[in-house]
Amino acid sequence: MVAEELRAGERLDGLPSQQIQIIQNPDMFSYSLDAVLLAYFAKPKQKGRGLSVDLGAGTGAIGLFYAAKVTGQVKLVELQQDLAEMAQRSVVLNHLEDRVSVIHSDMQEIFADIKPGSVDTVLSNPPYFSVNEKTKQNLDEHYQLARHEIAIDLPRLAQVANKLLKNNGKFYLVHRPDRLEDIMSALAARKLAVKRIQFVYGKADREANMVLVEAIKAGKPGGVRILPPIIAYTANDEYTPQVQEILYGQPWQL
Amino acid sequence: MVAEELRAGERLDGLPSQQIQIIQNPDMFSYSLDAVLLAYFAKPKQKGRGLSVDLGAGTGAIGLFYAAKVTGQVKLVELQQDLAEMAQRSVVLNHLEDRVSVIHSDMQEIFADIKPGSVDTVLSNPPYFSVNEKTKQNLDEHYQLARHEIAIDLPRLAQVANKLLKNNGKFYLVHRPDRLEDIMSALAARKLAVKRIQFVYGKADREANMVLVEAIKAGKPGGVRILPPIIAYTANDEYTPQVQEILYGQPWQL
Repeated sequence: MVAEELRAGERLDGLPSQQIQIIQNPDMFSYSLDAVLLAYFAKPKQKGRGLSVDLGAGTGAIGLFYAAKVTGQVKLVELQQDLAEMAQRSVVLNHLEDRVSVIHSDMQEIFADIKPGSVDTVLSNPPYFSVNEKTKQNLDEHYQLARHEIAIDLPRLAQVANKLLKNNGKFYLVHRPDRLEDIMSALAARKLAVKRIQFVYGKADREANMVLVEAIKAGKPGGVRILPPIIAYTANDEYTPQVQEILYGQPWQL
Repeated sequence: MVAEELRAGERLDGLPSQQIQIIQNPDMFSYSLDAVLLAYFAKPKQKGRGLSVDLGAGTGAIGLFYAAKVTGQVKLVELQQDLAEMAQRSVVLNHLEDRVSVIHSDMQEIFADIKPGSVDTVLSNPPYFSVNEKTKQNLDEHYQLARHEIAIDLPRLAQVANKLLKNNGKFYLVHRPDRLEDIMSALAARKLAVKRIQFVYGKADREANMVLVEAIKAGKPGGVRILPPIIAYTANDEYTPQVQEILYGQPWQL
């Protein structure tokens, strides 16, 4: 993409390891390490086949990073029209129109576009903050919908994921560790059995600030595995070699 | 203690940082890093005061390591008579008879000895394996009772802890990460709100093999903190500096 195709206020952010570029607008909502790590954490169906859906796709970062490691179709579902439109332009920018499509829709009404029980993998980086917390809500609507559980909350997200997935299909979620109990109870209530959890710690001596979760539809509950810790930054505020490899290293393996 | 006070098959294992020695019998049941880390993880009541109870104390390792950092009373509850007797000899060996006592009892019948609602802190390193798992049960009775949920399981343990604790009293548990869902649901069912979790990873690139949990009786649910990772061993199979400090460093601070 040449620079003149970017609109006012937009910029391109790239993920070198996956050779993907994302159109961003810092005034609206930008992806962060959360999106990269969720796309990295998710294990696609055998040989990368099958249908994958990103619920609440924003500018499309997760779905596009993930699309680069799979061979199947990826559908990006986004409620906010201008974010969906930016995601669509990023799909074209990365020449992925044949495998990646953007659906501008409330995820709770997605069943008009995607058949229940037809999806192999659902990914989501949902709003992190419950609206009854004392967090001061950002006045900008884009940030509000992306960060606070206004349009979707965990129980409804789990319901949508459950309905989309085939049996034994997988649901991947990135969230805040302080919501761990809410996550686990919402998933359990929808027969999504948590199988793998990975915590991301800002530094080796800091509390976790991110959690990655894998759940299987109609899986046997119990027996969760806690994967090795991901430490984001060194004591000198640089990315650790572990995260540098994910961002700048070889393309991700299946 | 002089060597002749040890009985056949027994040995002394010490925790240098806390200057505590524990009489062990490798043929019966020996404490491991789990016990050390739980005693280290537990935050006593203000200034170390108050009544603490170790449920399923075994040879008394957790209670004695913990007793060295508090000023209040510690009661060790153990079902197996010969383990309780060994724990009692370790109490004497460490000159802690004035603050630490051993009760030989089924923890579910402990209310004859300890008044409900009177305890500030409960600690437990319970059996890790559910009896309906396909794990081969060790034929030795000492190991069976200590490792398998025969005499006590998570829901009943949570019930006993809840009944012993004052409101806002704390329950500390060490367990296997694959039981995380069982732990969280058992605690939630008894109004024990999980507040802090710390995962222990055998090495930096290994899955967690231990989880430390703090719950508060009648606390507000949600908002759990995931403390910095504890990595037990270096790539060269030596204790990490972090764990060396806990084992051999300065006495633990409150």
